[in-house]
This record gives sequence, structure tokens and C-alpha cells, in this order.
Amino acid sequence: MSQPVTPPPELFAGLRFDAEGLIPAVAQQHDTGEVLMLAWMNREAVAETLATGRVCYFSRSRGALWRKGETSGQVQRLIELRVDCDGDALLLLVDQTGVACHTGRRSCFFRAVREGELVEIAAPLVDPAALYGSG
Amino acid sequence: MSQPVTPPPELFAGLRFDAEGLIPAVAQQHDTGEVLMLAWMNREAVAETLATGRVCYFSRSRGALWRKGETSGQVQRLIELRVDCDGDALLLLVDQTGVACHTGRRSCFFRAVREGELVEIAAPLVDPAALYGSG
Repeated sequence: MSQPVTPPPELFAGLRFDAEGLIPAVAQQHDTGEVLMLAWMNREAVAETLATGRVCYFSRSRGALWRKGETSGQVQRLIELRVDCDGDALLLLVDQTGVACHTGRRSCFFRAVREGELVEIAAPLVDPAALYGSG
Repeated sequence: MSQPVTPPPELFAGLRFDAEGLIPAVAQQHDTGEVLMLAWMNREAVAETLATGRVCYFSRSRGALWRKGETSGQVQRLIELRVDCDGDALLLLVDQTGVACHTGRRSCFFRAVREGELVEIAAPLVDPAALYGSG
């Protein structure tokens, strides 16, 4: 899917949003397979993402739509939206511009348990101050 | 990480479980990069997974620990547990035996929006009745 689309009716019929009206969405870089982040979408975010082809989440901290990259420029172009068996999780195949993580790392999953310790396995590629304006 | 480990203290200190004591966990096949499923873990499931090297989730429908593959034999061996920037999502690199999905498909994300329709993009590899006993 590379053309903007209207959400198919059977999509929303089969999605199970939680008590807050949200569903978890995993963003994966479409060509490398790298899992970039997990965020949340409400019905409006799903519809906007499909309509525009640019990924829009719902920010739980801000209580508002979160058009990924609106401030930082690190947008996610939607390649394909997938739904799991129970309809309670989404997988977004995306093309990530720059970095997904607000820390300046490509992926938000940059810490791992290795040899009994929680260690950083990826360094920032970009200075966060450059993404969000100087602090 | 291929050896069983005791959870590092700084792991639990940095994890943010939700109001039900749960955190979403994405399982990804470690070598192919395929995203297999999204499920939930509580503190005990995280600790057991790290201690045993076999992935254990928390079943929200059953309200109990869910040792993946206990009934079906389709176990997930933990390769590495990763934590995201906010500590509110986990990425599990796993080695999946057989299929991850209870429908007999490799991945739970077997439906996609394509050309404005929600379509199945993967067929079952195994008869679910063979996984869970005949119906």
C-alpha cells in the first residue's frame, strides 16, 4: 500500500480498542526489519494514518494526536498496516526518516539485558537538541 | 543472552508497568526479523522468562501466567530482551518453534490493508486442531 486509502469498514469492525480507546502499534522499518518503537493509536489516528500515508499516533502523555515527526522532522511513511489475529494490536511497516527515538537513536529499543546487566546497545545518531531545538 | 539470568535490579527499577501491572512485549524472530506477535507480561513473567530462557507471558483473558507453547509445543526461546526508551515496552528477540499464532500461522499479523481492503496475507502452516488437540 503506497497510495492513501480510506479505512476499509471491516478494519474498524474488527479492531479492539482498550478502555481508553487505544490500540498498541509496533513500527517496523519495512526493508531492514528493525523494530523501531511501540506507540498507541486511537481510531482517529488509524484513520488519519491510512488517509495520509504518514503515521499518526495518539500521545497518552499529551492526550492528543501525535503526528510522528511533526516537530522533529523524523516522519514515518506508512508502507503497510497489519492487524493481528485478535484485532488488538497493529504492526506498521514504515519507512522511517532519520531516527525513531526521541533520544536520537534509530530504535527506541536500545537497551538489552546482556550477561545479567541492562546495557545500552546503540548510541545516538543525532543530537536530540538538533531534533527538537536547542535546550 | 543465551544463558538463563537473574533479572538485573536496574531492569525492574526502570520498567513502567501499567495500572494492571502489565507491559506490552513484542516478539520478533531473531534471525529473520519477522514480528511474530504482541502480548503482555507482568513482573513475574519477565523474571521467569529471564530465569528460564523460555518466554512466559501473562494472559489477560485467563488472568494467569502463559508459558508460550505449554499446550501447543510452539515455544519461544529467548535470545535477548530489550527495553525501550521510556521503559514501557519490551522487545523479545526469540527463536520460535513452529508457529506463533493460535490460528496456525507463523505470525499473528497475517492481515493487511491492501488496496483499501483488509486481506489475509498468510495462510496457516499448521492445522490449529493439531496444535491444541482435535476439536
